[in-house]
Amino acid sequence: MNAEPLKVAVLGCGVVGTEVVRRLSEKRDLLADRIGAPIELAGVAVRDLRRSRGLAIDPQLWTDDPLALVKRDDVDIVVELLSGTEPAHSLITTAMEHGASVVSANKALLATHGPALHETAALHDVDLTYEASVAAAIPLLRPLRDSLGGDRITRVVGVVNGTTNYILDRMTQTGGAFGAALREAVERGYAEADPTADVAGTDAAFKAVILASLAFHTWMPPEHVYREGITGVTATDVADARACDRVVKLVAVLERIPSRHGREGILARVHPAMVPRTHPLADVRGADNGVIVETPDTGPLLFRGAGAGGAPTSSAVVGDLVTAARRRVLGHQETTAPATAPERTQGIGDLRTRYHLRIGVNDSLSGLDGVTSVLRFHDVGVDSARRSRTAGRDALVVITDAVREPDLRTAVDVLAGLPSVDTPPRFMRLLDPADAR
Amino acid sequence: MNAEPLKVAVLGCGVVGTEVVRRLSEKRDLLADRIGAPIELAGVAVRDLRRSRGLAIDPQLWTDDPLALVKRDDVDIVVELLSGTEPAHSLITTAMEHGASVVSANKALLATHGPALHETAALHDVDLTYEASVAAAIPLLRPLRDSLGGDRITRVVGVVNGTTNYILDRMTQTGGAFGAALREAVERGYAEADPTADVAGTDAAFKAVILASLAFHTWMPPEHVYREGITGVTATDVADARACDRVVKLVAVLERIPSRHGREGILARVHPAMVPRTHPLADVRGADNGVIVETPDTGPLLFRGAGAGGAPTSSAVVGDLVTAARRRVLGHQETTAPATAPERTQGIGDLRTRYHLRIGVNDSLSGLDGVTSVLRFHDVGVDSARRSRTAGRDALVVITDAVREPDLRTAVDVLAGLPSVDTPPRFMRLLDPADAR
Repeated sequence: MNAEPLKVAVLGCGVVGTEVVRRLSEKRDLLADRIGAPIELAGVAVRDLRRSRGLAIDPQLWTDDPLALVKRDDVDIVVELLSGTEPAHSLITTAMEHGASVVSANKALLATHGPALHETAALHDVDLTYEASVAAAIPLLRPLRDSLGGDRITRVVGVVNGTTNYILDRMTQTGGAFGAALREAVERGYAEADPTADVAGTDAAFKAVILASLAFHTWMPPEHVYREGITGVTATDVADARACDRVVKLVAVLERIPSRHGREGILARVHPAMVPRTHPLADVRGADNGVIVETPDTGPLLFRGAGAGGAPTSSAVVGDLVTAARRRVLGHQETTAPATAPERTQGIGDLRTRYHLRIGVNDSLSGLDGVTSVLRFHDVGVDSARRSRTAGRDALVVITDAVREPDLRTAVDVLAGLPSVDTPPRFMRLLDPADAR
Repeated sequence: MNAEPLKVAVLGCGVVGTEVVRRLSEKRDLLADRIGAPIELAGVAVRDLRRSRGLAIDPQLWTDDPLALVKRDDVDIVVELLSGTEPAHSLITTAMEHGASVVSANKALLATHGPALHETAALHDVDLTYEASVAAAIPLLRPLRDSLGGDRITRVVGVVNGTTNYILDRMTQTGGAFGAALREAVERGYAEADPTADVAGTDAAFKAVILASLAFHTWMPPEHVYREGITGVTATDVADARACDRVVKLVAVLERIPSRHGREGILARVHPAMVPRTHPLADVRGADNGVIVETPDTGPLLFRGAGAGGAPTSSAVVGDLVTAARRRVLGHQETTAPATAPERTQGIGDLRTRYHLRIGVNDSLSGLDGVTSVLRFHDVGVDSARRSRTAGRDALVVITDAVREPDLRTAVDVLAGLPSVDTPPRFMRLLDPADAR
């Protein structure tokens, strides 16, 4: 192989960065074969030069000046593995302005600045790919963009956050509370020391924005994603789910639905939901991810696998790197920018789905009458109802028919004021294969 | 949009061709948006011009002269939906020689002539893609080639033939025989009038060759794939599988294993296997397909969805068409030819796995002793053994430890000669997550 080596700069050397740098050297021959030219490390930018990372690379390659690194004109590809939007945004913009293609795993960055970054990439004729930003090793973004490029995707539903899935899985297995499961996740390395972005659903919401851009060809601001985390999920919720043959999962759902007023738009939502045990997403265990993509022609397509972790994420990063490098060797860039157009985004008030309701009552017999009449009055159909007695407290558990969320919320507010109701009703959305159709 | 239209010729207008042609017109605007130029039908070649296909296209576009169509210099992309290797091979070779990119769904053709076709594509700087040839709508080939381009794939295991999966699923549900399930499959349109290629495993073997080329970067001749169809699967096999919490599936397994003599190579095999009910492939129902790809970095990745049918297959064809068309608009071709190198292929005699054995005996008590001593003598470890009495006949059912196939076969031959054994022993391979490791 006589081709010139391709120079790769890596920004950030945490868990994923360490794995990527290790693979570039361990898989040197395999990568050169697949690319048609060898890969050469141009530099690794880190915040703290003194920290040891156990990597056997030329000490000269370490730098704490990422800006100088991305300004180098001999760098072909920049791998950006920072967290948060700055300085990542300005660094990769500068990198692209200097002619480098960019591989990123940074979902916050892409969700926030995706359109501008794609414009910069197109302007400078470079590649911008980020397969690792959603569902780690599971090939998902490229299939959405290319393989399903001729399809009209109607719905994407997934478990896209490994940390929360691990926590909910533990709660399901042990019957324990959120706090205990979270502590276990932190101890075992499945949650970061500050797990806020995961448990609050922010991470999943960023991923929802990226998925929406590829599935529905539109960029929505992250704040348009309806978001509820898992911090409020209780052991009772988990037990209630079990009682109706379901499990609680943090789901991301993207779908084109009509608004209350009949206008089409995209609803993106992230929240805990009760998922039937027979649903393919119920089988997504531990820190895994799973995503179902639906189109009229294909029916549901399931993608499932490791959704987090250094090795799986590095697989996706290196996959993008190989593709970008191949194009460099061939002398042309990829069509990175998915054609997008502004789309109306819907609010959670436009959702029509089924709900699980738990209503604490001081007298379950007379309570049932009052509750069902309130529900009926607010057009909330009852699919099933049962009495429950947990820890000495009576409750009514109701599963509704598909109803509009505002109707459900109004009914819940009214129920909270009934004399027979002694605890504010809790509700959780159900995820059904035929939801919201 | 001022771009010149891209001209597409379609060869073959059966179930899939009809769906593709319909989508080109129904999705005209969507495809133009995604490609950056409109698609224009240049012609549809069929064998019988008199047959009505219910397609509202300009009657001038029908032709029974495919060769004249592919020789036209104004055709940008040829979609080949014929069956069998000829005349498909010469037609798409001619098409590429005349500068057209090719999208094919023809697994027999690709499995048999893949390397030569890729050479022609590279020589004439055109695209050659065939996502629809394996697992229909499930994006699989492109992820293997691109997303996992930096990974060392160790194993691919899948259910890749919808017809046989439907038949085995029916046998599992009804407890009935192969013949009845096959008739039902034909009546319901899940099997062709001549289902030989499906039930004999030939179709799955072609797909295995294509998967091997992308997963292991080597082309093997189809006859190197060990192949056993499902015509010999009996209701007793299905019942035996159920008794050990398994289901019978026709699986395709590709893996890099050492030979008996310690040399590395690729074993590709297609055969019925007993799959644990908890295995992700056990959930692949009806005519669906499912494929698991394993790499050290990612762990198992599951792809599941519709594996056959006009609409799902047309989704994959149109996806390839969009990608090829985008590249035409950008003025460059894809790196279609995966870098490949000859690899040693292993025979079934190199397999080491676990087996289910059913041994008809005329006296199950003394039979057990004789059987286990023969197994022990031939190094076949016994994981479990039970007696079975079906339709008045005694049998011993043994599940072995992992053993080499030649040892198992020798033991089976010896068992057949024991005086206590009155029916030749049947064996079926087990599929376990940790098989052959």
